[in-house]
Amino acid sequence: MTPQEWIEESKDKLLSELKEFLTFPSISVQPAHRGDLRKAAEWLQQKLVSLGFRVEMLGDPPVVHGFYQGPSGSPTALFYGHYDVQPPEPLEEWESPPFEPKVTEKAIYARGASDDKGQVFMHLAAWRFYVERRGGIPLSLHVVIEGEEETGSKVLSEILQREGARWRSDVVIVSDTAFFDEDIPTLTVGLRGLLYTEIRVRGPKRDLHSGSLGGIVENPAIALAYILANLKGPDGRVKIPGFYESVRPPSAEEVAAWRQLPANETYYLGITGAPALAGEVGFSPIERVSIRPTLDVNGMWSGYTGPGSKTIIPAEAGAKVSMRLVPEQEPMKIWEAYKDFILSLAPAGVEVSVSQLHEPTPAFETSTNSPFYKAAEEAIARTFGKRPIPLREGGSIPILNAFRQALGGVPVILMGFGLLSDKVHSPNEHFRLSQLWRGIEALIQWYSLVSKPSSLLAE
Amino acid sequence: MTPQEWIEESKDKLLSELKEFLTFPSISVQPAHRGDLRKAAEWLQQKLVSLGFRVEMLGDPPVVHGFYQGPSGSPTALFYGHYDVQPPEPLEEWESPPFEPKVTEKAIYARGASDDKGQVFMHLAAWRFYVERRGGIPLSLHVVIEGEEETGSKVLSEILQREGARWRSDVVIVSDTAFFDEDIPTLTVGLRGLLYTEIRVRGPKRDLHSGSLGGIVENPAIALAYILANLKGPDGRVKIPGFYESVRPPSAEEVAAWRQLPANETYYLGITGAPALAGEVGFSPIERVSIRPTLDVNGMWSGYTGPGSKTIIPAEAGAKVSMRLVPEQEPMKIWEAYKDFILSLAPAGVEVSVSQLHEPTPAFETSTNSPFYKAAEEAIARTFGKRPIPLREGGSIPILNAFRQALGGVPVILMGFGLLSDKVHSPNEHFRLSQLWRGIEALIQWYSLVSKPSSLLAE
Repeated sequence: MTPQEWIEESKDKLLSELKEFLTFPSISVQPAHRGDLRKAAEWLQQKLVSLGFRVEMLGDPPVVHGFYQGPSGSPTALFYGHYDVQPPEPLEEWESPPFEPKVTEKAIYARGASDDKGQVFMHLAAWRFYVERRGGIPLSLHVVIEGEEETGSKVLSEILQREGARWRSDVVIVSDTAFFDEDIPTLTVGLRGLLYTEIRVRGPKRDLHSGSLGGIVENPAIALAYILANLKGPDGRVKIPGFYESVRPPSAEEVAAWRQLPANETYYLGITGAPALAGEVGFSPIERVSIRPTLDVNGMWSGYTGPGSKTIIPAEAGAKVSMRLVPEQEPMKIWEAYKDFILSLAPAGVEVSVSQLHEPTPAFETSTNSPFYKAAEEAIARTFGKRPIPLREGGSIPILNAFRQALGGVPVILMGFGLLSDKVHSPNEHFRLSQLWRGIEALIQWYSLVSKPSSLLAE
Repeated sequence: MTPQEWIEESKDKLLSELKEFLTFPSISVQPAHRGDLRKAAEWLQQKLVSLGFRVEMLGDPPVVHGFYQGPSGSPTALFYGHYDVQPPEPLEEWESPPFEPKVTEKAIYARGASDDKGQVFMHLAAWRFYVERRGGIPLSLHVVIEGEEETGSKVLSEILQREGARWRSDVVIVSDTAFFDEDIPTLTVGLRGLLYTEIRVRGPKRDLHSGSLGGIVENPAIALAYILANLKGPDGRVKIPGFYESVRPPSAEEVAAWRQLPANETYYLGITGAPALAGEVGFSPIERVSIRPTLDVNGMWSGYTGPGSKTIIPAEAGAKVSMRLVPEQEPMKIWEAYKDFILSLAPAGVEVSVSQLHEPTPAFETSTNSPFYKAAEEAIARTFGKRPIPLREGGSIPILNAFRQALGGVPVILMGFGLLSDKVHSPNEHFRLSQLWRGIEALIQWYSLVSKPSSLLAE
């Protein structure tokens, strides 16, 4: 039975299993969901045990670690993924409830369908193919699936420092990224870093009557607006001193790769639904989302936000502000410059404080020269009929640097099958079924190719 | 039995009645509380009927109108008040629940305790004194108590236009303002107007992943911050073109009155609890809260505001922005200038819209020359031992202009007994018991004095 035939025959069973996995509201930033994180981890534990893995649960929320002993002499791969998801809010914009997965003709809808439960599940399916139809997985495997990717991988970072050496592997494989488009396979070769902060502005001790006392105090919401409005110039450039100091221009190879993509305004307008594109003057859209650092407000609040009018001067205001960093930008250096800049912008009459809400994450880059990368190219080409284009992705996977450090410079393969239109982190997140099925097939191919890397090297 | 003796004897009974009135969550801006508005109105209806008023309920939320026929030849006064209250949010900052009134040694705590249920109740008490101890109220009375003061008095405006002439009176009496301080009685002679708006900024069609797509769209929260930051200059002046065009300087009498008040920085720092005062350069605090127009953000929101980090570019952002207007500023002219200014500030890449959330209200001024004003001075002087100082108040009572129009230039007396420290519109609103009891006594005096105004004029 070929992998294709097995997938065809198993579709219903696989979908119903994936739906189970998507049912857990494993939202790592919301403390109320601690128990749901554990349930999702236990579900994974069961699946891995049934496939012949030796499984341990480490820390809280648990890092699920499984080990599978492959044929003697075979290489060892480490699969990394995460079972935690972003908050589903705003709930009223979901067309079906975020934790009641819905399958349509084209896609499966749920929070986590693409990021990252759906993609973790593709590996579970690929391994199952080998166990059910080939008598076992053709190589040794460490599986590491955590529940804090969306909040900065604190537990896993500590574990990696302490006992990462136990997980020594020849390659790390991750599926948490996206194709440029359904017909344009890409392999991710870089990720941006992340610095995520919160600004709090405090004014009067309590909300004040905006009539009786309007005119004599600084309004915290206006003070915050002033700070935020000064973070970027009209040219779209971030004004934090030194922000661009170490930013590199793109390589000639990258520019050549971009030329193969229809990365034009129409494409990005379609993906974003924005009335017009914007961004840093002097750079094209694809440069702005990959090799240029950015700054965004992710959330903002002050005073009364209910229906109608309430005539108050709010006692405080706050904003979540994050930056995506590119290679050579040191997160802690940017943090210091950012913090000083914010405090320097604070008007008199309010108290301003800044904190971090996420482990600071540097950017990540991977090489296209390893046999494991070439295996990924080959697996995708065989399955999707086109060679993938190497491309940087604008998002972040905080833990990858720590893996590389703990495992001694191991190659990392970012072989993701999402689409930019999956609405990851947004309402109505979904995963294309065609990407799911072809992705499983490509992964089966990849595991086969890397189980005998000498054959690839010889090519 | 003197009024003082009656009040002393009735304290427990009066407090338990006031507590009943404060129990209704009659929040006019929140549609869910429609039924509670009606309940509060029905409670008033009962009380008025028991005092011998003929009562009708007009519109929805009901305007409670009562008429009391006084001795023949006596003048007619119209009492205006409101039974609706501001939203109690943020709830977690209340030390006791906002609709479970709590009496301490010094004050009664509840939403509406001072604004305006507590002050409406003082009149009910004064009338009851006359009914129980003097055989009846010594003049004719129209009582008009509405449920939409906090949202712009829409129902009452229509009623006044239609049938205000039926309520022809010699004077309008209102208790919805405050003393400068407990030992510094004041009578309010002016109120600021109000223009209350909402700005909405729309960017991408949905929240976007701030990594994958960060850099190519305008961030709606930053666009809103830019607009808000540009509404006032570093000198604290509002930058809407023409905003100050018709603003008058204070009169010599006003400046003289201010000199009698300890309206210094220490006083206002104590009231506001702000780290420092702020405001329009070139004006003293008391000018800033009375004769100068202001602009404030009352609420602001965008994106994710829950715990921790969520990495999105929000699809939209919004803010509630209000202005307090002074005499000669025409609300509709300011509205047009404001709207044009906001739209002119909108960055490319977002769609901005502006709307009004409240009936636009011009400022209000009243004269200090009528016998009714002199009666108020006299009543306060007799009860509090000090002649009140005439003072403008920075808040607004939207309906007063309509009363004056409907009743043909009638004098309006703003005889309020709140304190600026009552936390009106804020958590832990309360009303000082000493102000409550002495206020009732002063009102009993005032009703007596104005029932024979000729005696006052002769003085």
